[in-house]
Amino acid sequence: MIRLFVQVPLREGGDVPLEGDQSHYLIRVMRLGEGDEVRLFNGADGEWSARIVEAGKRGCRLRTEAMARPQSSAPDVELNVALVKRAPLETIVEKATELGVNCIRLLRTERTNPDHTNLERLAAIAREAAEQCGRLDVPQIHAAERLADRLAAWDGERALMFCDEAGDAQGAVAALLGKGPGPWAVLIGPEGGFTSAERSAIRSLAATTPVSLGPRILRADTAVIAALSVWQSVLGDGAGLEVGSALPQVRD
Amino acid sequence: MIRLFVQVPLREGGDVPLEGDQSHYLIRVMRLGEGDEVRLFNGADGEWSARIVEAGKRGCRLRTEAMARPQSSAPDVELNVALVKRAPLETIVEKATELGVNCIRLLRTERTNPDHTNLERLAAIAREAAEQCGRLDVPQIHAAERLADRLAAWDGERALMFCDEAGDAQGAVAALLGKGPGPWAVLIGPEGGFTSAERSAIRSLAATTPVSLGPRILRADTAVIAALSVWQSVLGDGAGLEVGSALPQVRD
Repeated sequence: MIRLFVQVPLREGGDVPLEGDQSHYLIRVMRLGEGDEVRLFNGADGEWSARIVEAGKRGCRLRTEAMARPQSSAPDVELNVALVKRAPLETIVEKATELGVNCIRLLRTERTNPDHTNLERLAAIAREAAEQCGRLDVPQIHAAERLADRLAAWDGERALMFCDEAGDAQGAVAALLGKGPGPWAVLIGPEGGFTSAERSAIRSLAATTPVSLGPRILRADTAVIAALSVWQSVLGDGAGLEVGSALPQVRD
Repeated sequence: MIRLFVQVPLREGGDVPLEGDQSHYLIRVMRLGEGDEVRLFNGADGEWSARIVEAGKRGCRLRTEAMARPQSSAPDVELNVALVKRAPLETIVEKATELGVNCIRLLRTERTNPDHTNLERLAAIAREAAEQCGRLDVPQIHAAERLADRLAAWDGERALMFCDEAGDAQGAVAALLGKGPGPWAVLIGPEGGFTSAERSAIRSLAATTPVSLGPRILRADTAVIAALSVWQSVLGDGAGLEVGSALPQVRD
């Protein structure tokens, strides 16, 4: 079933006009026509079944029928990630969306290159990934800010899973077991790693839990997926663990 | 430091001739010359520092100096993955190598397309990923075989983490905590999922532990990275958990 994210309120019997890419996709690419069903979501009103009631050259019109799934709240985890090159950054946005982050914050660090990010393109990638993976909202992508500014403004209520490749950090599952479920953020550095001053600043936040993702050097996009997968599997909606589970014995 | 996988024995003071792509990469792309140092590994003799002693138009010659890291044994986990399209399959090979699998087995299932796999190209991707991530071997990539044949020949000593998106499976961390460390295999289906007959056949193996990767629909490449990350973080070399840790309380 095709799912589309729309930016209008959804209610029974409502009219939803579609233009541009979304109409082109339904009518030209997927060759749907009047009477065909799709699903709509807007991040607030749940998922609705809707039928195409008019299909024209410049756009189409849908009518919502019934709510298929109510809006549900997802775990509150955000991704903080240093700017990397275009291709891995696009992979990161797609995969982080599939893995349920509620927003993505891009960071400039000592070892990141100048910011040539196309936020509109990244937002489109996030929207398509949300449509495909079944989630009921689309994560917002925030324009790049300096790591130092982000840390200075850190909300102490938000725990930080810091993926620290340069240190003595504990394995990620061991480090997360027994922690509370949220809100959380996951922090992944640039391809060249954080500087030691940056590492110190991150580790000096009271909210920080440093974790290791294992002995191999992971590319930034792999590290994002690995970290979010482990977080969701221990503290998020993929867990099936009782929140606050006792910590198993940990190797020193 | 540049690392290269070579297929010759490595010992102190040994001569290692390089031709073709590897020589081109060192001399033309990275602009190294006589006296410059690289690291070599062959999957058996550890990692060696080596210097370029001759750099010519058609190739170059290195001499090994000292062992930098002894060969170490990695956790025994293999990836069994249904054939998917070229781009995600290449991502899978790269990322599974980074995440430490010891081999990759490609599977034909009811919902996979005809096999147009270029094993040589996939092997080159695995080699490059191994060179970059710091591991001391390169995972072998086996030609595609039928899922049914693979299951019929299953080695009962090898536990199977079956990523089952269609069912009632337990969260992956909860399902793996308390299990023994190996040997293991991770099984990921095609984009369209396994058929219900295939699911039954997989779940009827005594070796199978079905696991869920969460409520969202993951693309095959995301699922591979998620599953292997969780496996390494619970049972592999990213764990830091005592093997056989007591299982925390599990939600029903």
